[in-house]
Amino acid sequence: MNPLDHTHHLTDSIDKLSRSESYQELFHQQRDGELLPSSKELDTIVELARTILFPGYYGNSSINSRTIEYHIGVNVEKLYELLTEQIFAGLCFVRTHEDDDCREIKRNEAAKHAIHFIGKLPELRHTLATDVKAAYDGDPAAVSIGEVILCYPAIKAICNYRIAHELLSIGVPLIPRMITEMAHSETGIDIHPGARIGKYFTIDHGTGVVIGATTIIGHHVKLYQGVTLGAKSFPLDENGQPIKGIDRHPIIEDNVIIYSNATILGRITIGEGAVIGGNIWVTEDVPQGERIVQRKARK
Amino acid sequence: MNPLDHTHHLTDSIDKLSRSESYQELFHQQRDGELLPSSKELDTIVELARTILFPGYYGNSSINSRTIEYHIGVNVEKLYELLTEQIFAGLCFVRTHEDDDCREIKRNEAAKHAIHFIGKLPELRHTLATDVKAAYDGDPAAVSIGEVILCYPAIKAICNYRIAHELLSIGVPLIPRMITEMAHSETGIDIHPGARIGKYFTIDHGTGVVIGATTIIGHHVKLYQGVTLGAKSFPLDENGQPIKGIDRHPIIEDNVIIYSNATILGRITIGEGAVIGGNIWVTEDVPQGERIVQRKARK
Amino acid sequence: MNPLDHTHHLTDSIDKLSRSESYQELFHQQRDGELLPSSKELDTIVELARTILFPGYYGNSSINSRTIEYHIGVNVEKLYELLTEQIFAGLCFVRTHEDDDCREIKRNEAAKHAIHFIGKLPELRHTLATDVKAAYDGDPAAVSIGEVILCYPAIKAICNYRIAHELLSIGVPLIPRMITEMAHSETGIDIHPGARIGKYFTIDHGTGVVIGATTIIGHHVKLYQGVTLGAKSFPLDENGQPIKGIDRHPIIEDNVIIYSNATILGRITIGEGAVIGGNIWVTEDVPQGERIVQRKARK
Amino acid sequence: MNPLDHTHHLTDSIDKLSRSESYQELFHQQRDGELLPSSKELDTIVELARTILFPGYYGNSSINSRTIEYHIGVNVEKLYELLTEQIFAGLCFVRTHEDDDCREIKRNEAAKHAIHFIGKLPELRHTLATDVKAAYDGDPAAVSIGEVILCYPAIKAICNYRIAHELLSIGVPLIPRMITEMAHSETGIDIHPGARIGKYFTIDHGTGVVIGATTIIGHHVKLYQGVTLGAKSFPLDENGQPIKGIDRHPIIEDNVIIYSNATILGRITIGEGAVIGGNIWVTEDVPQGERIVQRKARK
Amino acid sequence: MNPLDHTHHLTDSIDKLSRSESYQELFHQQRDGELLPSSKELDTIVELARTILFPGYYGNSSINSRTIEYHIGVNVEKLYELLTEQIFAGLCFVRTHEDDDCREIKRNEAAKHAIHFIGKLPELRHTLATDVKAAYDGDPAAVSIGEVILCYPAIKAICNYRIAHELLSIGVPLIPRMITEMAHSETGIDIHPGARIGKYFTIDHGTGVVIGATTIIGHHVKLYQGVTLGAKSFPLDENGQPIKGIDRHPIIEDNVIIYSNATILGRITIGEGAVIGGNIWVTEDVPQGERIVQRKARK
Amino acid sequence: MNPLDHTHHLTDSIDKLSRSESYQELFHQQRDGELLPSSKELDTIVELARTILFPGYYGNSSINSRTIEYHIGVNVEKLYELLTEQIFAGLCFVRTHEDDDCREIKRNEAAKHAIHFIGKLPELRHTLATDVKAAYDGDPAAVSIGEVILCYPAIKAICNYRIAHELLSIGVPLIPRMITEMAHSETGIDIHPGARIGKYFTIDHGTGVVIGATTIIGHHVKLYQGVTLGAKSFPLDENGQPIKGIDRHPIIEDNVIIYSNATILGRITIGEGAVIGGNIWVTEDVPQGERIVQRKARK
Repeated sequence: MNPLDHTHHLTDSIDKLSRSESYQELFHQQRDGELLPSSKELDTIVELARTILFPGYYGNSSINSRTIEYHIGVNVEKLYELLTEQIFAGLCFVRTHEDDDCREIKRNEAAKHAIHFIGKLPELRHTLATDVKAAYDGDPAAVSIGEVILCYPAIKAICNYRIAHELLSIGVPLIPRMITEMAHSETGIDIHPGARIGKYFTIDHGTGVVIGATTIIGHHVKLYQGVTLGAKSFPLDENGQPIKGIDRHPIIEDNVIIYSNATILGRITIGEGAVIGGNIWVTEDVPQGERIVQRKARK
Repeated sequence: MNPLDHTHHLTDSIDKLSRSESYQELFHQQRDGELLPSSKELDTIVELARTILFPGYYGNSSINSRTIEYHIGVNVEKLYELLTEQIFAGLCFVRTHEDDDCREIKRNEAAKHAIHFIGKLPELRHTLATDVKAAYDGDPAAVSIGEVILCYPAIKAICNYRIAHELLSIGVPLIPRMITEMAHSETGIDIHPGARIGKYFTIDHGTGVVIGATTIIGHHVKLYQGVTLGAKSFPLDENGQPIKGIDRHPIIEDNVIIYSNATILGRITIGEGAVIGGNIWVTEDVPQGERIVQRKARK
Repeated sequence: MNPLDHTHHLTDSIDKLSRSESYQELFHQQRDGELLPSSKELDTIVELARTILFPGYYGNSSINSRTIEYHIGVNVEKLYELLTEQIFAGLCFVRTHEDDDCREIKRNEAAKHAIHFIGKLPELRHTLATDVKAAYDGDPAAVSIGEVILCYPAIKAICNYRIAHELLSIGVPLIPRMITEMAHSETGIDIHPGARIGKYFTIDHGTGVVIGATTIIGHHVKLYQGVTLGAKSFPLDENGQPIKGIDRHPIIEDNVIIYSNATILGRITIGEGAVIGGNIWVTEDVPQGERIVQRKARK
Repeated sequence: MNPLDHTHHLTDSIDKLSRSESYQELFHQQRDGELLPSSKELDTIVELARTILFPGYYGNSSINSRTIEYHIGVNVEKLYELLTEQIFAGLCFVRTHEDDDCREIKRNEAAKHAIHFIGKLPELRHTLATDVKAAYDGDPAAVSIGEVILCYPAIKAICNYRIAHELLSIGVPLIPRMITEMAHSETGIDIHPGARIGKYFTIDHGTGVVIGATTIIGHHVKLYQGVTLGAKSFPLDENGQPIKGIDRHPIIEDNVIIYSNATILGRITIGEGAVIGGNIWVTEDVPQGERIVQRKARK
Repeated sequence: MNPLDHTHHLTDSIDKLSRSESYQELFHQQRDGELLPSSKELDTIVELARTILFPGYYGNSSINSRTIEYHIGVNVEKLYELLTEQIFAGLCFVRTHEDDDCREIKRNEAAKHAIHFIGKLPELRHTLATDVKAAYDGDPAAVSIGEVILCYPAIKAICNYRIAHELLSIGVPLIPRMITEMAHSETGIDIHPGARIGKYFTIDHGTGVVIGATTIIGHHVKLYQGVTLGAKSFPLDENGQPIKGIDRHPIIEDNVIIYSNATILGRITIGEGAVIGGNIWVTEDVPQGERIVQRKARK
Repeated sequence: MNPLDHTHHLTDSIDKLSRSESYQELFHQQRDGELLPSSKELDTIVELARTILFPGYYGNSSINSRTIEYHIGVNVEKLYELLTEQIFAGLCFVRTHEDDDCREIKRNEAAKHAIHFIGKLPELRHTLATDVKAAYDGDPAAVSIGEVILCYPAIKAICNYRIAHELLSIGVPLIPRMITEMAHSETGIDIHPGARIGKYFTIDHGTGVVIGATTIIGHHVKLYQGVTLGAKSFPLDENGQPIKGIDRHPIIEDNVIIYSNATILGRITIGEGAVIGGNIWVTEDVPQGERIVQRKARK
């Protein structure tokens, strides 16, 4: 094949790939001057939020009690700007054609959401402090609180989840899911932003954990790697499409421990203080205080 | 220890690490001016391919039907250049000593492979559209097609797999495996490029999924996180080395669902429409339409 | 909300987030001019170590036997500088208030640790060569030693583990755990740096593997994805805190194979040559040579 | 001084620097969400314009007559987006308080200016071709047209000037001056965007050349390094401020040559075909065809 | 030449270049762990200083009177850290062998210098405000104060000079000269940090201006491009080396104007209000109020 | 103008700019897979060369006599690779159509040139040491040899010139001119790579200096800023094109000093030890030992 043939083949492929019947289902058209939601920007946003929530652990600055306000001030302002932009991108991404001309309104809506979210940061920090404590208390290998904050994937995943859950609660579309998926990729822990999770929550190791959208988890719950809190099945509508918004994931009450690779499916309840052994498949309620484990292996 | 001692210890270690008997098995010698395959370049290549396949979802440009051809044109040309270079690097990496002086021939071979691959992109886009649809239809939590494309790890892993499978089919060495391992690292989903997978394929959550090199999967199949489609054992040759190229992974027929953490091993067949429950270990054929689940846990 | 209100709300949040009672448990104060341990620098350090250990596989240079010493020389020196800095950062991070003024002493200690670690590199390379061989011999899909080194996540995770284990052995705090967590994030394989692991060790696919801090593994052991070598429970002290430093993870003897998603818990012993089937939960000793598998699924 | 004192001194300086009476004259307040004009973005804009104007010289792509349209298409669209944003930033930067709420209007104005400018690019390319020819024809050291385009600072400075002049003509504030100052910094050639310059214009070497805002230059004019076309003096208004907008720089007619370090001051005319020797100071008209040089040096 | 020969020639050159007799005069040995002064870091330092001095003009943040303190706070702290490090690098660079072991002392000295410099910033800002006003008042082409700050090379050069002069005054070695050379490269204006310059100082266009180390300039002085304030000759010591520290550059009194390319040499005095025409060579005192210009050119 | 009109106007401009009659003179077509010469790569090359020539001054490594060879080794090898590539790019850039198919030959030629150049580095370092000494001895403001190497623009410009001159001497096209133009932009000193310059050469301050292609300069010559060594005029051929390759620039003999802004034009000789005053225009020979200065200014 000579160079000319190359050009010919390439332009031929370009033609095919540019025809509208080829890309129809997979095409997204942004309006002029509107940004797409950007994982890179969201990365920076999460990084900023961590820097604000855990002062002194990120960013290599030697802050002290007299200078901390400058740092928080600048970081909060930057967070406000970046978050407003990404929320705006999210609002544009999901709009329907009718609200074409309300760009300025949507931008104000985005700014309001960002302000609202930032107002929740003090509370969010308080809750994360309980999660850090739970991780430290629950792991004999943990040397210090600092090690837990800097190294433990569970803290990263739970932090992203709590940020995303807050954003979802105030009605921000798309962005929350992107934020939890970022943690999913980094840690292997997949928590849907819709789940409701109490304080002192921890996950050991964590790879493979899945927590579905309608899951409810109480306080002082501990999961190990590979635990699934999933849906068993879901009803379809008359078009064969899954019906959205039905409660289909488990309720885990306070003080439950679930060991590695256990699979808990459906809107069942794991009662307070129950202990679920590893590698088992649970599709029925477990009463409070009960311990269940896998049947013995055979030789 | 004073600074002079430091230098002495360091130069001593350098000497040891530079002796040929020290690095013998772990040394790779590229020829002058030949690049190594580069994960960073392959990242860009996959990014470019996604930009071409899903126009408007990546790259922050507001394309429309009049300008899309410019974007596809430039991206395809760039893809052609980068892919040619990486395929060439792959061909050089695996060469034996005999074909020392055929550099120009190999470069032409690389260019031909790249052209060929690009010619397959329209078809690849069509297949990926079926995967996106399967993911959307199969998840009540999915809000829109756009969310599926931007957030779902399964789409990323399957996209990389389909690209890699295509490259492997036309005889490109090394590069396909690097591309699927990139998705493995990003999503926790490990699909060997040699597997053959039908349309409307989807994986929910996905972390921990393993699909072996000789697996065959039909259409409309759905896997959950942690599912293994693996080999049970493999025969060794007279030198105790595993014999390459034997079919050793499962055949999954159309419309099968396999739940989380199920392990399916060996060249067995899971019949059409079968449902495999979570956390089980399957090493024998499952007839079509059958449902199997784990034995009940004990208290 | 008008812009002025925005500023008002933001400064209000900043005030709250800057109060010491708000951040108390989550605050870390570095001394003036002392760096925090940095994942980015540790990334570079691991990259450098890989470049030294596997000459010619990383860095795109066409080294040969006459020029290899220059490259090893420069890379070792750079490794020495960066590692000294990070070890120093680690030592500062965990210090107690008493040793305030011994900065110069700690820096010398860090340099000594770095020198010591570099002195171990030739041995480390030798051990890694056995791991590479085990991975190649154990996988019929492996095409070449080169492919194993460049693509296999197990090699990356084991390499990080062996580096981290060495650093932990000489008393470096924090840094070893950060290094294994980096591999955990990249590969889904979570090996605690405290574990003791023999030669010819390999892990297939790997996502979800967990190896606890007091685990002991012999030679020629092979794990599959999702295997947990964990603790069953741990005694608490009088304050309800877990007692640190107790042996609580399994001992795996030579030539053991453990299949995917098996969970081995507690200080039990899996005897030489035993084979553990997938998806099972093992909390008692397994005699040498024994094979155990999951009970059959029910339909 | 101990660390505490340091913090004390720093916070003291911060207080002083934050008081409004300290920064009054030197403070610029952007509105929320409005970008400042950015030299970095303007650099990219000029780079893009050069890539479009001189196809194949920049950007390392092997374009040919079949693929050039894709490249021009993408580059023009990108130029449109970046330029719109910078023009908008310029319009905001200079606004007075009255037009507070017309943000959307200004953005449309910016887009219109950008479109208008892009419409002028074909003509601009044509004029630059004459400048390139003049540089090549006028320098015995020039080896090829390509060398002139890639290496000659005059081409860079004139290119920036012609872009800036066009933008100034359509009423864009601030941005034109920033663009010529970028060339000034890069080449030492300072051409005010307000000057009017004919075709086939060239400057040899160029460092130190100054061409003032109301200068008029004909066709086929050549300057050497260090030439000043400046103002002699300027009338002040009743407040002692210079009166803006008065013609105060020279008129240089066609085919004039001015040698190095000559200084031509005031609204005088250098007649067609005149030759001005180096290092002289000219404040009166020079008739057409005349040659003037410095008085002989003394020993 | 075959590849082997290449390696041979290269290693031969490497040998020669590594011999101590080859590099003797051109070798600089830093101590272990000591940084060299870095132009890149100094660039950041100057950028930071400009951001602090001209709030709102750099950094794309929409600061207002309520948030300005956060920004100043963070920037001042960052400036303190970077400047301490660079001053320390400068102190190490020039040390003699005797003070080998006083690293900690020097670091404290560097920190003290940095604190001292930062304490001078409010005054420095005040002086720069007079320079900005002089540039604006003296140029009919200046549209606004903002344009002067953002675009005028004189402001950049004078700002760097005033920073460098301050650092030199408190005894910082090497760094001041590096800072003025950065402005020299950017603007073509070369002001030695040792010069003493009054308020309301401005330079029009500026390329080629040279102001020597012992120059003294009063208030309200204006220079044009290409003006040299230099030394005429300098006495040598008995070894033929120039004697350092002798006053050898001009004194320019208040309200002097010097036109383009004028050369003023030696410790002469240009009296108050004098006007020096362009392209002349002045080596004798000029009385106050006098105007001198070049002799008329000849035809 | 609505968005649709925008698209219409843009595509219209794109069409015009893509027509071959529009870009004809300004189009450069690289062959498939051939790189353009790249200023960015040449920057790295010059940086590398400086790192090799002045060991310890660049790159922040604490080299000593035992480790210097590793650094030189790696840097020389990297220089060889990058330089080969850029020389190859230069050779391709200037080729005529006849030698289409000799790509491999040209690459070998480039490698040979690079090897040859590297072989000259020891000598080049020796000559640069004389230039550094001349700068130090000639400037009372110079504090140390180190300051001269790190800060003086003359050293940067002369270093680039000596590199470029060497490359030009062995027949490398285009690249030498790009290298001297980089120094021109950085320092305002424009030395044509064709000029021949002796040892102990120095330029004070330097902005605006021009040294033409056929200039010959002896040893121990010193120039000040703004000095031009240029051509007076040049004969044209029958087509009105300047005749290439004629000696048209001055000969400056040993020990000459030329003060600021002097202009020396034509193939004249400035005799040994002559001193040329500033701001004068010299077009005739100056005998050895003579001093000439500008005529006195008039009031």
